[in-house]
Amino acid sequence: MDYKIVGFALGVLLTILGVAELIPAALEWSMSSAEAGNFFMNSMLCLFFGVCLILANKSFNREPNIRQAFMLTSISWIFVSAFAALPLYMSNLGISYTDAFFESMSAITTTGSTVLSRLDSLPYGILLWRSIIQWIGGIGLVAFAILLLPALRVGGMQLFQTESSDKSEKLIPRSADIMRHLLVVYTGLTVLCALSFYLEGMTLFDAINHAMTTIPTGGFSTHDASFGYFDSISMRLTATVFMFISGIPFILYIQFFYQKKMTFLQDEQVIVYCSIVFGLTVIMTAWIWNNEPYDFMHSFSHAIFSIVSIMTTTGYATVDYTVFGTFATMFFFFLTYVGACAGSTAGGMKIMRLSIVSKAVSHQINTMIYSRGLFPIRYQGKAISRPLVNVVLGFSGLYVLFNVLLTLALSLIGLDFATAISGAATAIANVGPGIGDIIGPAGNFSSLPDSAKWLLSLGMLIGRLEILTVLVLFTPAYWRF
Amino acid sequence: MDYKIVGFALGVLLTILGVAELIPAALEWSMSSAEAGNFFMNSMLCLFFGVCLILANKSFNREPNIRQAFMLTSISWIFVSAFAALPLYMSNLGISYTDAFFESMSAITTTGSTVLSRLDSLPYGILLWRSIIQWIGGIGLVAFAILLLPALRVGGMQLFQTESSDKSEKLIPRSADIMRHLLVVYTGLTVLCALSFYLEGMTLFDAINHAMTTIPTGGFSTHDASFGYFDSISMRLTATVFMFISGIPFILYIQFFYQKKMTFLQDEQVIVYCSIVFGLTVIMTAWIWNNEPYDFMHSFSHAIFSIVSIMTTTGYATVDYTVFGTFATMFFFFLTYVGACAGSTAGGMKIMRLSIVSKAVSHQINTMIYSRGLFPIRYQGKAISRPLVNVVLGFSGLYVLFNVLLTLALSLIGLDFATAISGAATAIANVGPGIGDIIGPAGNFSSLPDSAKWLLSLGMLIGRLEILTVLVLFTPAYWRF
Repeated sequence: MDYKIVGFALGVLLTILGVAELIPAALEWSMSSAEAGNFFMNSMLCLFFGVCLILANKSFNREPNIRQAFMLTSISWIFVSAFAALPLYMSNLGISYTDAFFESMSAITTTGSTVLSRLDSLPYGILLWRSIIQWIGGIGLVAFAILLLPALRVGGMQLFQTESSDKSEKLIPRSADIMRHLLVVYTGLTVLCALSFYLEGMTLFDAINHAMTTIPTGGFSTHDASFGYFDSISMRLTATVFMFISGIPFILYIQFFYQKKMTFLQDEQVIVYCSIVFGLTVIMTAWIWNNEPYDFMHSFSHAIFSIVSIMTTTGYATVDYTVFGTFATMFFFFLTYVGACAGSTAGGMKIMRLSIVSKAVSHQINTMIYSRGLFPIRYQGKAISRPLVNVVLGFSGLYVLFNVLLTLALSLIGLDFATAISGAATAIANVGPGIGDIIGPAGNFSSLPDSAKWLLSLGMLIGRLEILTVLVLFTPAYWRF
Repeated sequence: MDYKIVGFALGVLLTILGVAELIPAALEWSMSSAEAGNFFMNSMLCLFFGVCLILANKSFNREPNIRQAFMLTSISWIFVSAFAALPLYMSNLGISYTDAFFESMSAITTTGSTVLSRLDSLPYGILLWRSIIQWIGGIGLVAFAILLLPALRVGGMQLFQTESSDKSEKLIPRSADIMRHLLVVYTGLTVLCALSFYLEGMTLFDAINHAMTTIPTGGFSTHDASFGYFDSISMRLTATVFMFISGIPFILYIQFFYQKKMTFLQDEQVIVYCSIVFGLTVIMTAWIWNNEPYDFMHSFSHAIFSIVSIMTTTGYATVDYTVFGTFATMFFFFLTYVGACAGSTAGGMKIMRLSIVSKAVSHQINTMIYSRGLFPIRYQGKAISRPLVNVVLGFSGLYVLFNVLLTLALSLIGLDFATAISGAATAIANVGPGIGDIIGPAGNFSSLPDSAKWLLSLGMLIGRLEILTVLVLFTPAYWRF
């Protein structure tokens, strides 16, 4: 098997990382901070390895096969994470490599769980670096979801096969187009988001950082109080809008801007996504308005912000919703698993799968009553094949199983019931905060034992890469291929 | 639609209940206790209504259709539960009807959650009555699983269609045979179990009661300390053996005794069931032995007892396993959902479904790697159709969804995280104890608010009747039939 393409791609990624590290280096240098040297040195390290890998592997085969694609995806996320952790580890923060890796994996998978505290007083370069890797992670994930997942046929993603992904021989030229369009859309949204935040009164630095973690639905903040630091209804609603936008498949934006096709309301995921957000917001607004000393507008803005934040797996908190009683805690706990649309930057199970699972459930009821009836399961108005339904349901089963295993492993380390169960959920769904005093919206992950941090890092990686992409590397069949 | 058959069946069930109530009446009378009159009066009440219903509906159509079967099942469980609760409500216990109904529903669904405390000092008649309704519930459930569920095609139970269930015109004569055989096997096992307990040193009363709650995998005890009252390794292992036996499909015992066919080791469910129990026992024994001041034999007997008790959804406790650390708590929490074999007295998801779900998962991995391969999903060595796989997976999705809804409803009442989530699980899976200080193995359900008790009763009913049997009554399609 030819792994040159893997080496080449890692080279490109490291080079990108090296260039990106020059930004915090410059920022720190302009502020005459001690971290400038750290970022500059790490930048050189990444550029050196990156260029070496590119040169050594430049004769790679330009038609990657599925086997190489699987390997590439898992390796590159781990590799980038390991290198992106170095500036955090080598900084004056004095954190262990475990903590640095956890933070970096949390960024690159756009999870947003953090082990750092007193964010408000950290060097600007460090804060910016966290946002930058989250931003890079986000665009990487969308590219992965649009270009690779349909071809890899992971968990029903073959539903999104287009002319760009079903003919592998044309993968690269078409991919380059899509990547360019995606980069423009993604950057455009980020700029728009930053501008909105800035106009509403955030400092330029906060506006840029929060935009860079809103669009990838990451959720890192520059303040310990997360979005709660900005006690403004308008900012809260602006953030809600941009998080919501990032939960919609990016291919629809590309079609809208480049092919002038307005397909948002023809997309089943988008319709279901809007309906869920609307329905849940009504329930949660009523709950908060009824039980807390907030007026309607505050209740509504906290409710919709928290719902969109958890559903899109951003994980910003404006308020510790677990103080709204067990119902709110439980509500947000279950919401952790849901996720937004497949093909967006959001994690979780994804609307497409939940939609097919719920159709399979109602299908079961129909076949039970009309034993001779034939009920096709439809997605986007088209009947989908039974094997495909099986694949989606099988994936969902695996998702649950994986949550159970990670929870058991975390409880083996000694984490309590709520921390173990919500820690596994929040890592695998790439949300960020969990439930309970330790890792809840008001807490952070720093006090967990190192072993738990490594397990959660693994959970974030596996959840982010849709489980199977990683799991397949451990099957004998993959190596016999 | 002709509901005469429903009325007739309810009449028969009430008559059985009325006759059964004469047993605690006689016991209480022989002990000159005040409860004798209560049981006798309730017996007369049941007999009166029972005979009236039989006489009024004796011209019923002898070929029940599927629609009637659905209605019959749900109504009869609620009806029997409501009547069986009366002797508890009218006794000197001074409990509310909510508590009495909860206790009765917990008995008839063989769940084993209790609201009664100071069991050791309760009148013998009351204790015996709890065991009797659990025993009746158990045989009712096996009959339901063998005779009705395959015909109703609920959640993949059509896999167990035999010549007795697939031709509805012959339903009644063949059913009578099976019922008679079942009654003999079920009673035989109960007598054997009681005898074993008695020979090992239980009082006759304890032996009979515990046998009557072991075989239906119910779990009501005559002592607050549950099985922990008998601090004997041999009794613990005997109980383990009989609980284990009750987790095996009863049709295999009928085949063994009446058709002289030894089919246990050809049954996929039995093989998987044995493997799971074996594997989990090894893990839990190691955990307890390593972490607690028990010797190997104590560790092993507590481990296998608790595992078999939770898996078969009996819910006896020898020890509060939640003191063995979070790992044990989490382990038993997840085990709550599993259940033993379909066609036994156990609740939960059932091995058959978990087996098919896990095959669908590995099928998803295979199709991902070999995109052109055809991989049939097999059960019992035979390829099963894709629609059937969908049905099982859809059912599993519904099972999860239902757990989520019940948990949310319980948290809306204000139960804490662990109580709400494990309360829903233990009710729907019909296990008995939950997790946490309130409803854990060392606690009981009496302190919960009334609304929670009604919700949990509903959960027990719906879980026990495999969700869809009840749910289907609320679909427009059922009424259009």
